[in-house]
Order: sequence, then structure tokens, then C-alpha cells
Amino acid sequence: MPAQNVYDNATFFKNYSTLPRSVHGLDGAPEWPRLRSFLPPDLEGRRVLDLGCGFGWFCRWAARAGGAAAVRGIDISNNMLERARAMSAPGEGSGFDGIITYARADLDALELPEEDTGRYDLVFSSLALHYLEDLPRLVRLVHRVLAPGGKLVFSVEHPIFTAPPRRALETDPETGRKYWKLEDYQKQGLRSKPWFVDGVEKQHRTMTAYVNVLLGNGFELTDFDEWCPSEQDLKAHPEWEAEIIRPLFLLMGATKK
Amino acid sequence: MPAQNVYDNATFFKNYSTLPRSVHGLDGAPEWPRLRSFLPPDLEGRRVLDLGCGFGWFCRWAARAGGAAAVRGIDISNNMLERARAMSAPGEGSGFDGIITYARADLDALELPEEDTGRYDLVFSSLALHYLEDLPRLVRLVHRVLAPGGKLVFSVEHPIFTAPPRRALETDPETGRKYWKLEDYQKQGLRSKPWFVDGVEKQHRTMTAYVNVLLGNGFELTDFDEWCPSEQDLKAHPEWEAEIIRPLFLLMGATKK
Repeated sequence: MPAQNVYDNATFFKNYSTLPRSVHGLDGAPEWPRLRSFLPPDLEGRRVLDLGCGFGWFCRWAARAGGAAAVRGIDISNNMLERARAMSAPGEGSGFDGIITYARADLDALELPEEDTGRYDLVFSSLALHYLEDLPRLVRLVHRVLAPGGKLVFSVEHPIFTAPPRRALETDPETGRKYWKLEDYQKQGLRSKPWFVDGVEKQHRTMTAYVNVLLGNGFELTDFDEWCPSEQDLKAHPEWEAEIIRPLFLLMGATKK
Repeated sequence: MPAQNVYDNATFFKNYSTLPRSVHGLDGAPEWPRLRSFLPPDLEGRRVLDLGCGFGWFCRWAARAGGAAAVRGIDISNNMLERARAMSAPGEGSGFDGIITYARADLDALELPEEDTGRYDLVFSSLALHYLEDLPRLVRLVHRVLAPGGKLVFSVEHPIFTAPPRRALETDPETGRKYWKLEDYQKQGLRSKPWFVDGVEKQHRTMTAYVNVLLGNGFELTDFDEWCPSEQDLKAHPEWEAEIIRPLFLLMGATKK
């Protein structure tokens, strides 16, 4: 089945565009510093593939701050790609003249040409893989297009976050304490929940599924984090207290063996 | 601080001794087949260390079924060790004459002699490491006593299971559905909860802590599972439905790099 592509829903897109990570890019994503620490220390002259590139913030960072030689961004959403292309327009001082290319594809059906085999030094994916129905297929494809020793770095919504079939952050009426109503952790598959619009479709996977899809397809796990705000973060963003109750972001890094 | 050693509490021990895993050994532990699949394919002639050996079921299995040359079991509980020694008495046909030795130690304070460096091919631990205050210290010790390429295989109570500070399996009064009341996932440290007796002390760690204590101390993660009952299991044990709502056992295997 083709993925839902909710990012091309006008109401969703309008609201999504107001999120800090949409407005401020990587600096608006609290998990970015941790995810960045998983990247190879030097992207200078490297080839990068970004799966689910959205507005292209990471593509531009990889080209400009990272010094990558070639960056390819893939996304399912025409809305996202249109804005990504506009923000990545070449020009004097842009730092990414001729370096970044974008293409539209459903990651569940993505094909990459034979000449891409072993082409990339880094495959990056931010909060996209939990939309996929067939993650093993994509991981095998990533393994094929990575150079030996190349790295896959990605974030997804945490399995604890994706598991419940309905709204799960609740308040105990007696104590006033918030808790996470965890259900169906071991029942993998589609979850359809409201997020700006009704029925946004994501795939719930266990931690076991995320770890073993790497270990079973020629990767060595090198980096792992369940993003957690610092005390300083919590002072600036009291609304992040939910992140202490249950993690929202799972971050992983793995090298091609 | 020395660990609590609740296994030498008479009331606790009497009740613990009635559990299927106490009465039937490995065959009474539902997670055992999965954990066994993480073991090296051949223990013949190998040296094995069992941390938190309890009644010694795994020590005897490693000696008899596995054909290990030497098996050392360590536990904090005199009650457990007394019974382990009685069940491991040498004798004709026992299969473990002179192979198994037991010693008493708090794993949080365990010291192993210099001559044990590189001695073991397998370090095993079943449901013991979540009692430890200083897991990194023990993991470094395990790394030291493993031979190159040697393996650490262990199970612990799952972070989702250990996180809540109080009873967490609840029933929604409106729907009758059971859920797991997850709290304080990111707050690592002591949890004191009732289990046969009041105030049984365990240490809550995040998944991140368990994975990174391995990756950060010279191990490659090779095996990972959050034990889940099969449909057949659930027919035989309807009470295991809670294992679908949230995992109870985390199983991991890692090799010394």
C-alpha cells in the first residue's frame, strides 16, 4: 500500500509548518544535538542521502556546515519538496551550489539505481521511518547503497510513544500526577491517531524490531539514545515534562559491517 | 551500599521457592528458549561464569547439556547457594563432577582475581543485573574476565517494567481494558516495591543505559529481545496477557570486541 502522505494535506501542512522544527530547522528540534553527535566526525567531501528530508534542513546543513560533496534528499510530500527546493536555491554564498538534489518518492517503494550501490557515506533519516510499512526492505536498500564502513543515523518516534492506540498522556484524578497509558506494546502495526488532523497513520514497532532490523541486515549498532531533556531544558520548556514520563524520540546510529 | 539480598528474607524465599522457575528450573522460565538462542552454539570444553546463579539451574545445564569444562556460579544469597550446592552434588551420572563451583558475593562489590583475566568464554546472568547499583563497574569486570570474542548473555527486568514507582497494571473502569501506568521512565535509580514482601529494592535503568553500558565498554551488541508470548503460549497461560501490554523481560547478548 502506498503511504498516507499526510504532509500534502492542506490543514496538516499549515499546522506542521508552524512547529519550531519547521520554522527554525535543526535548531528548533530538541533532539538534534544528540543526533548530530552520532554523525561521522567529518562529512567533508562525503556523499549523503537523506530519507524523508522534509524542508531540507539537514541537506543544507550537511552541504554547508558539513562540507559534503553531494547530498540527495528524498521525500514523499510535494509541499515539503517545493519549500525545500526554494530554500536550497543555488546562489553566491549559499554554500550548496550544485551539491543538493531532491527527488520525490514513497520510502516504502523507493528504488535506487544500480550505480548507487556503495555510493553513500552517510544515510540520514529524521522522524520518517515510523511511517514505513516495510522497514526491513528499506534497511536492506540502505545497506546496499552505503559504502563499506558507511553509517546510517536515524531518529523515529519511540516505541513507547507509538504503541498506544489512542491518546495516552493522562492525569491521575486523585494525585494530579501525569502518566502514560501504555497499551498494546507487543502489537506491531498501523496506528491511526489525531495529529492536527484525524487519522494520521504511523507504524508501531517494538524496540526489538528496530534493533534487530539493523543487526539482522549487516549493521553494527554504534549509537543509541532515548532523548531526554536536561534540567536546563525543562526550565526553558516546562511542557517537556512529558519526556520524563516516557520518551518520545529514539535515536540510533549503525555502521555497515 | 551493599545490595539488599531479599532472597535471604525467610518470607520472600519461601514464596519465591514456589515460582515455576524455582520448581521447574529453566523449563519453568518462559523467556529461557529465547535467551538460550543467544548462547554460543557450542559450550563443549568452555568456561562459564553465572552472575546471580540462584539455585544453579543454568550452571547445571551448562555443565550437563552444554558440556562446559568449568562453571562458576556467584550469588549473594546463602539460601540460594545452599540449595544450589545440594542440587549440584557430584555423583555417578550427575554430569558435573568437579565442574561446577559456587561462591557467595554481592555483584555490586564482586572482585575477580588477576588469573581470571580472559578466562571465561561465556558470562551469563539471569534476572540479576537490575539489582545492581553500579552496572558499569560490573560490565567492565565482565569484559576483563572474558576471552577475546567471548560472550555476555543476560536478562533483566525490562525498563518499562521497572520504571513506575508503584503498582502499574491497571484496569480502565470504563472499558475494562488493562493498561500499564508508565511513570518516571527517565528517572533512573532505586525503586522499592512489594514482591512477596514490602520494599523489594531494584534499580531502574533506561534502555539507553543498558545498550550504552555495552557499547561504551568494548562490547558489540549481537542479540536483543523483549520477550513476548506466542499465541500458543497465551492459550496455555491466559495470565500472560500483561506481556502484550508491556514487556517484562529484556534479553541481550554481546561479544567482547
